[in-house]
Amino acid sequence: MKAARYYGPGDIRVEVIEEPRPKEGQVKIKIAWNGICGSDLHAYLTTVVKFPTKTEANELTGETLPITLGHEFSGTIVDLGSGVDGKKWQIGQNVIVEPVISCLKTGSCGPCTAGSRNICPLANFIGIGGWGGGLAEFIATDVRYVHHLPDSVPLEVGACIEPLAVAYHAMKRSGFEKGKTALIVGGGPIGLFLLRILRSIDLESTIIVSEPATIRRSLALKHGASHVLDPVKTDRNVSEVVMGLTNGIGVDVAFDAAGVQASLDVALASIRPRGIFMNVAIWEDNPRINMNLILSREIVVTGVMGYDRVHEEVLGAVASGKISGLGELITSKISLEDVVEKGFLALLNEKDTQVKILVHP
Amino acid sequence: MKAARYYGPGDIRVEVIEEPRPKEGQVKIKIAWNGICGSDLHAYLTTVVKFPTKTEANELTGETLPITLGHEFSGTIVDLGSGVDGKKWQIGQNVIVEPVISCLKTGSCGPCTAGSRNICPLANFIGIGGWGGGLAEFIATDVRYVHHLPDSVPLEVGACIEPLAVAYHAMKRSGFEKGKTALIVGGGPIGLFLLRILRSIDLESTIIVSEPATIRRSLALKHGASHVLDPVKTDRNVSEVVMGLTNGIGVDVAFDAAGVQASLDVALASIRPRGIFMNVAIWEDNPRINMNLILSREIVVTGVMGYDRVHEEVLGAVASGKISGLGELITSKISLEDVVEKGFLALLNEKDTQVKILVHP
Repeated sequence: MKAARYYGPGDIRVEVIEEPRPKEGQVKIKIAWNGICGSDLHAYLTTVVKFPTKTEANELTGETLPITLGHEFSGTIVDLGSGVDGKKWQIGQNVIVEPVISCLKTGSCGPCTAGSRNICPLANFIGIGGWGGGLAEFIATDVRYVHHLPDSVPLEVGACIEPLAVAYHAMKRSGFEKGKTALIVGGGPIGLFLLRILRSIDLESTIIVSEPATIRRSLALKHGASHVLDPVKTDRNVSEVVMGLTNGIGVDVAFDAAGVQASLDVALASIRPRGIFMNVAIWEDNPRINMNLILSREIVVTGVMGYDRVHEEVLGAVASGKISGLGELITSKISLEDVVEKGFLALLNEKDTQVKILVHP
Repeated sequence: MKAARYYGPGDIRVEVIEEPRPKEGQVKIKIAWNGICGSDLHAYLTTVVKFPTKTEANELTGETLPITLGHEFSGTIVDLGSGVDGKKWQIGQNVIVEPVISCLKTGSCGPCTAGSRNICPLANFIGIGGWGGGLAEFIATDVRYVHHLPDSVPLEVGACIEPLAVAYHAMKRSGFEKGKTALIVGGGPIGLFLLRILRSIDLESTIIVSEPATIRRSLALKHGASHVLDPVKTDRNVSEVVMGLTNGIGVDVAFDAAGVQASLDVALASIRPRGIFMNVAIWEDNPRINMNLILSREIVVTGVMGYDRVHEEVLGAVASGKISGLGELITSKISLEDVVEKGFLALLNEKDTQVKILVHP
């Protein structure tokens, strides 16, 4: 079968590799769509910590580079391994995969024992640490990671559930609820998914998006932002404008979906006393942080890693239409052969126009 | 009366100024003891944000420099202003002052309305923003800021209640409770007060103190640390040792009572997934912070400003002996004339031997 294999920064090759067979407890899935994620892009640009190297294997998967990329995917079951419950899992069903992998040592690993596998010290992802990936024709994966895709949710949207779950988990950990105000810094896929989620909880509250790309600001307005700000062209700085829009108080929650010094500075300065800074970005550098501001406002700074048992809730909200409009955030659909040129390079060079690109293997 | 007046960095003068008279709703207190605080030291070294300047008045007090220093003090009521409840407040009573001042605009200020005056955007302190200070023979202050000192608590210990309240508030906001583990980075006054408080909650749990000064490490052991570490001379780094002491998991809470890059790095790396980093230090520089570590462990980073209605609880715990040993942390008692030489300079130059210095005006 064809698969996009990651050999290291700048080196992704579409190759023919052996088709996987489902082992005991696994299902084989024919992949329909796979979204390209920000962390895939990071890995294309530079060495990223969760990936194995050519010589050092990942502790969970035992794999070294190359690995098959892709962890945001949907597909259809085409085969069942032995021991899989045939009443629950059947050939032809549409599914998605929740790709967090962890040590699963219940008892000795606190997070895995508690079920919060995403914060296991070894936590990783299918398509990053190994065990196949969504940028391939097929994957064989343990049913424990698989969720049924409701009939009302198209396979394209199914491929968006993984990043949506990241945003949903961030929303839950932030304590955002009806009546609260928010600032989202960065109008990329996660920022816009966050916006849809926050709007699904409160149709009217002040939700501000700060984003330099014009098209993304338009998308943010269309998808429910009460105000959009251009951090580059605003004559006053963003945090002053946010203060003005929130009666001089600041927002309850600021989400950083950009992960740069300026986004941290703006977000922190825009938060009310005892408000929340929620990081949903991967950082290339360690930024400087105003600890005295955190102290004087007793601000809470935190971040999220993947998601913690929210997929069924997210799938329910999408199936019921409570969270909607995801399909409109898919800006391009390409074939696997074009993954580098029309996928990675498009996302890097056409930031203004591209949000989520899906790949069909 | 004599008072230590702050004119700016490096310029503290003991001068004779007019004795204050209690206005309506105020009591006049003859000050017994005043502790020198870390923020006083900061102000002696450099310009600190909460102080007014020679030309810019503080928004709440309307005062410019010089101001009378000192916000950790105890004393005895010597006069009552008009309108003060004579049943509750009487001449001869020992008292302490809770020196947080704020805008008090209930209705328009969220924190003041909620009673959390410490996070009012204008929050400041008597002895920093103005309105007199504890490094003087007398102060006249609004009774709303005054607490009775229980008979069983000596005036020397009374002067330690203010920094103890900072540590107590930090403990409460950190969620520390019986059965939890903690790391305290920095064994100065706040670090050691924190230690006494944590020990008053759990007599047996793992509480580790990291501190370079030998005498302070000895004090930490004496005051209840289960382990003390020297960050300079340890052959492994502190966070590795902490991991070893907590079954490879990390501590539930790390308190930063040092406020430097190394303390932040060590504390963050020592925290379990979803554990708490609690800052109780004032920072001279903005440190770099490992946002990806916060993300991958979903660590919560926060800090405290003063205290929020904990004085009565703290006074009760000290009066009942639940929190004890504070007197042993007073390493020197000096007179007001010696405040610079034997106070500020001793704290700056004899860090190894000095913890809390009390001044008697």
